[in-house]
Amino acid sequence: MTDRTEMWTELGMDLEAHDNLCSVLPTAFGDVFLSQENRPAGMAYWDMVTADIHGIRPAELVEAQKKGRKVFGTFCVYVPDEVVVACDGIVTGLCGGSQFWVPDGEQVLPSDVCPLIKASVGARLGRTCPFFRIADVFVGETTCDGKKKAYEILANDAPMYIMDVPQMKREKDIVKWAGEIEEFAAMVEEVTGNELTPENLGCAIKVINDKRRALARVYEARKSTVAPISGTDALLMMQIAFFDDPVRCAEMCNKLADELEQRIAEGVSAMPAGSKRILITGTPLAVPNWKLHHIIETCGAVVACEEMCTGTRYFENLVDEGQTTLEGQFRALSERYMKNNCACFTPNTGRIDDVIRLAREYRVDGIINTNLTFCTTYKLEGPALERAVEEAGFPVLNIETDYSDGDSEQLRTRIGAFVEMLGD
Amino acid sequence: MTDRTEMWTELGMDLEAHDNLCSVLPTAFGDVFLSQENRPAGMAYWDMVTADIHGIRPAELVEAQKKGRKVFGTFCVYVPDEVVVACDGIVTGLCGGSQFWVPDGEQVLPSDVCPLIKASVGARLGRTCPFFRIADVFVGETTCDGKKKAYEILANDAPMYIMDVPQMKREKDIVKWAGEIEEFAAMVEEVTGNELTPENLGCAIKVINDKRRALARVYEARKSTVAPISGTDALLMMQIAFFDDPVRCAEMCNKLADELEQRIAEGVSAMPAGSKRILITGTPLAVPNWKLHHIIETCGAVVACEEMCTGTRYFENLVDEGQTTLEGQFRALSERYMKNNCACFTPNTGRIDDVIRLAREYRVDGIINTNLTFCTTYKLEGPALERAVEEAGFPVLNIETDYSDGDSEQLRTRIGAFVEMLGD
Repeated sequence: MTDRTEMWTELGMDLEAHDNLCSVLPTAFGDVFLSQENRPAGMAYWDMVTADIHGIRPAELVEAQKKGRKVFGTFCVYVPDEVVVACDGIVTGLCGGSQFWVPDGEQVLPSDVCPLIKASVGARLGRTCPFFRIADVFVGETTCDGKKKAYEILANDAPMYIMDVPQMKREKDIVKWAGEIEEFAAMVEEVTGNELTPENLGCAIKVINDKRRALARVYEARKSTVAPISGTDALLMMQIAFFDDPVRCAEMCNKLADELEQRIAEGVSAMPAGSKRILITGTPLAVPNWKLHHIIETCGAVVACEEMCTGTRYFENLVDEGQTTLEGQFRALSERYMKNNCACFTPNTGRIDDVIRLAREYRVDGIINTNLTFCTTYKLEGPALERAVEEAGFPVLNIETDYSDGDSEQLRTRIGAFVEMLGD
Repeated sequence: MTDRTEMWTELGMDLEAHDNLCSVLPTAFGDVFLSQENRPAGMAYWDMVTADIHGIRPAELVEAQKKGRKVFGTFCVYVPDEVVVACDGIVTGLCGGSQFWVPDGEQVLPSDVCPLIKASVGARLGRTCPFFRIADVFVGETTCDGKKKAYEILANDAPMYIMDVPQMKREKDIVKWAGEIEEFAAMVEEVTGNELTPENLGCAIKVINDKRRALARVYEARKSTVAPISGTDALLMMQIAFFDDPVRCAEMCNKLADELEQRIAEGVSAMPAGSKRILITGTPLAVPNWKLHHIIETCGAVVACEEMCTGTRYFENLVDEGQTTLEGQFRALSERYMKNNCACFTPNTGRIDDVIRLAREYRVDGIINTNLTFCTTYKLEGPALERAVEEAGFPVLNIETDYSDGDSEQLRTRIGAFVEMLGD
């Protein structure tokens, strides 16, 4: 593997602390991924990217910056990548999914904030994530109290731009979000020095839609009870999609989908016969948070679908490609993004509808509703969601967990019992 | 005291559980209020109202309803009372401030939600608060994740109407809030059956401004180092203001202010000489939450000012009375309410400016920043606030507490030590 020390030094990273992170990741990755059997050959791409996750893609971003391109770091699936791509900018995900970053986050945040927020802030302040060093602009949003106020703290150390996500979904809220996108576009134009036009935005809408179509093809294959890919592998593909170049992401996902479709035709499964099928819903699973998928898939089940931001919400619903004015395109973008059923909205019954629809489409045997500790919005939706899916005939298990390993064995016991009781 | 059993029965209250609440309140009230010395005579009004807090005012509301008037229950200082008053409706505060209601709230809410939310939901679901039985409409808002999602749960049991508070304070957010007020007005017109006109709204704006002016007069008197009233008494006046008829509230507050001004002229203090002066800032103190004020004022200090919703935010800034069209009035209302510096906004540096300004105006010796447990927005603002006020020369003590008495002695020790170290 290429030595990245020089790049990391230039990025102002804390090399010593970062070495500690680098020394545990390969073991974690090996335990979770390489121990799986019958993996699709196409996963080799994601294995390679993940094995050098702080090297390959960061090096590309640094190269692009040297050519004058700008990098926009984001924390949420509401931020419209299309606008950045249209102005020749690059989007990279920033959410932190490792316990490694939590203590650095707790230097400035109280312990009763969700681990995703603590890890994201810690990754920046501890200088142990190259993506958090590379980004020229950090794009936050008002999706939850924790993120909204943590961005204020992050703003002391990083250039933040905040988008105000509506909390409801009326017509005027769609208009409002279109307005936020327009204002965001003006900032992107200024930072990149490139003008946004109906032509380049139209192209970018097509590029990101193509990425969505490719991700959707992989998910479509997961609907087959052949189970041609593990949920753990599919999750990794999804997590990396937030960091990857969108054209290459689509290409690789399409290649993987080709292979999965072939596998389905030939009845080749990645999972043991009789594996129970699980839909998982709830708070996002940022890389390298593979904890639940790993436990579920070593308990006799397969994760068939993720109804979460790191899942169906990232690719379902395409942006209308038929608009030819910026105004029409902003509106089309707003309409697409506002279809996302995040728990930040009130009410958010659309999420319940989604979960039941997806549970049927992916032919699952049971649902796991997972919540990161101290995530108020998802936690308070839990009881209504659980009632509704049970009424629809799906057994449900409710889990609250964080990034630490302390509860792994307890979770294994609970998930194992849940999988066992699922009907044949 | 009048027997209210019949009214409470007709309101569908749980009489047995409510008796338990009624049996502890008089002792609590006696310990906190009646033990004080040199109280202003004007406090007799608030003593009377509080002694029969679930009787006098609820009976008035029930009488008004019999005459066809409607009661709007609110949880937040952003809801524009003016609109309701203009349509001959009545506004009553609903926030719960007693530990008594928390267990009923925890039947449907997780324990890691702030006690104000748990108590408010519990007061409704446990049927132990007449105000929560009387209200025809419950007006919620999107000020924090906990409230926003708790209203969805409350909506299963009570008729909710939600206003979407902007999360930022740009010009377009003021426009948005004016739009929310307009939509709210349409609902109020429908519920009350009364048309909103520039004339009746103009009168209502005057009525509520007069109430604000009266409350401001009492606070103005608190700026005097004579300390003509205890903070505990001033807090009670403020808490009852959320429930009282606005015209009577203004009248009583003006009478109290007359007395306080007289006391200042004569040098009559409600507090022992040499009491250190404290400004308290943070999460609201809903009735009957008197815990912190009581501890502070029995530790050698006087609370001179509350920079909170149950404090300066409730009366500072008047609505422009010069507007003659509904459009202009909605805009004027929005401008006034959007000056409120709640931690739900990002950024919210205006609150820091307010605290420093008020600390100077009220000539305080120190600041106590208090946070209800699990209130994320205020907690995450804490460090920046503390840094700023310390730089401005004010010692600050940071407290996180809930409605239980378990930490009272610990708080007394910490607050006692803080007060002692304040300079002479």
